Amino acid sequence: MTATTPSPLTVLGTGAMGTALARAWLAAGHAVTVWNRTPSRAEPLAADGAVIAPSAADAVSANRLVVVCLLDDPSVGAALDGADLTGRDLVNLTTGTPGDARSRADWATARGARFLDGGIMAVPPMIGHPDSGAYVFYSGSAELFDEHRTALATVAGTEYVGTDPGLAALHDVALLSAMNGMFAGLLHAFALLRGTDVAPRDLAPRLVSWLGAMAPAAHATAERLESGDYTKNVLSSVGMQAAGVPAFLRTAQEQGVSPELLLPYLDLLRRRAADGHGEEDTAGMVELLVRQNPHPLPALPVR
Amino acid sequence: MTATTPSPLTVLGTGAMGTALARAWLAAGHAVTVWNRTPSRAEPLAADGAVIAPSAADAVSANRLVVVCLLDDPSVGAALDGADLTGRDLVNLTTGTPGDARSRADWATARGARFLDGGIMAVPPMIGHPDSGAYVFYSGSAELFDEHRTALATVAGTEYVGTDPGLAALHDVALLSAMNGMFAGLLHAFALLRGTDVAPRDLAPRLVSWLGAMAPAAHATAERLESGDYTKNVLSSVGMQAAGVPAFLRTAQEQGVSPELLLPYLDLLRRRAADGHGEEDTAGMVELLVRQNPHPLPALPVR
Repeated sequence: MTATTPSPLTVLGTGAMGTALARAWLAAGHAVTVWNRTPSRAEPLAADGAVIAPSAADAVSANRLVVVCLLDDPSVGAALDGADLTGRDLVNLTTGTPGDARSRADWATARGARFLDGGIMAVPPMIGHPDSGAYVFYSGSAELFDEHRTALATVAGTEYVGTDPGLAALHDVALLSAMNGMFAGLLHAFALLRGTDVAPRDLAPRLVSWLGAMAPAAHATAERLESGDYTKNVLSSVGMQAAGVPAFLRTAQEQGVSPELLLPYLDLLRRRAADGHGEEDTAGMVELLVRQNPHPLPALPVR
Repeated sequence: MTATTPSPLTVLGTGAMGTALARAWLAAGHAVTVWNRTPSRAEPLAADGAVIAPSAADAVSANRLVVVCLLDDPSVGAALDGADLTGRDLVNLTTGTPGDARSRADWATARGARFLDGGIMAVPPMIGHPDSGAYVFYSGSAELFDEHRTALATVAGTEYVGTDPGLAALHDVALLSAMNGMFAGLLHAFALLRGTDVAPRDLAPRLVSWLGAMAPAAHATAERLESGDYTKNVLSSVGMQAAGVPAFLRTAQEQGVSPELLLPYLDLLRRRAADGHGEEDTAGMVELLVRQNPHPLPALPVR
């Protein structure tokens, strides 16, 4: 074996993402052992050369590097219950919160494993394609990351963000939250066109270039948040934005579109202006989101 | 006079945007007459060579091309009440709804004017700087647009979107709505960092590049909306997104951040999944925004 022989590894969980990861490692020459709670969903990987383990404990015992990609954090605890984690390097790519990652790191460390948490910034078809832009935020054991970075880099770009195991999930949720806000805005924009002669495919390029031009405003927002100064060189004040609120609401009404996706931001503008911050930059609205702490977990209405 | 001598024009309203427009035309050699309801706010433009008109009617009578940039549509009606619009070319850059623009077009046409509505995609400091990316959507009289396009292009790029006078406002509000969604997402992302060791300026470049990479999803959304097919080649289904909702809510709770800006989108995901569309693309959620028509105008809570 040369130093460049791909190391064997285990993948727990063969949903869409776990399967994509296992396939990418197999394609790169890694020996891969897989396990899934529902065995039939792991079987297709056998044709690609994967070894199907009969239990999670067996899959864990097969290799030092164990990648976990399950539904949620409780599934991780359930799958690994009874497995011997001594000397294992656990890379947890299961979606969760920063707190989930920190607790799971303590739990794994207490069982003799090193722990690295990851947040995947990609959909499954992007995995294993270096040009796709897919990458993963990692946080936790720097030693684990350094030792396995080549294997990890095989499936997606790597961004190590710190030893606090919660930081990968924090970055992941922050970016996905910003994206969800943008997607909400896009849905509203497309909804406004319904019943008009403007084709969605004619609006799309305008939306894409406009959002691309406006996204870098995040740099100025960051500078203001670091300085705490919301008043200097304000280009578009809270008050000016708040004055535009009725045009957004009436346009939605004219077009027969529910304003539900935009209302909280418009309301925040109005509240911030009413609080006497009308001359300031909108970055200061972050204060209204964080000053009540802790926020209660909301009960979402689900029909 | 040669054909390239800049034509004289009138600007009604010298707020931040009207002043920026007037300055840009003056700098390009246009003779500019201005009027503002509060005269003191127009006076600084005299130093740049503008003629200050004593009334809106005088300002309108001074030039054929009359650019209107006031607070809102009722202000336009109030300012032009009593002015002789016969033979005038009215370019209305006042923020309003598509319906406002259509009514105002009828009103102006009935008074003997040609009418062009515009939606400005810029903040005042970008006006008159061709490299800034500033542009204006125009709709209404194509003859007016063609005749004055050189003067209009002096202050910002021009995008003529159709003879229906409402289309400029529709494009304007659609793009700004999408931007507000993105800004809401960014505020939430930055709020999540409060009290952590992650500096806003370290997150900002990650946010900007992630949003830049994700914005082009609007093209695929547009294709799905045109075809009405939300089921083919789904990369990230409503159900997968809905399954991630608890991680967003619990992360906000852990970080002491109000989830208010994200809730409506997360709720829409859950409702769409509960409606049996879990395997579909999120583009189909537009159906939930438009199917009740007309939507009542919401009363926003203002403290």
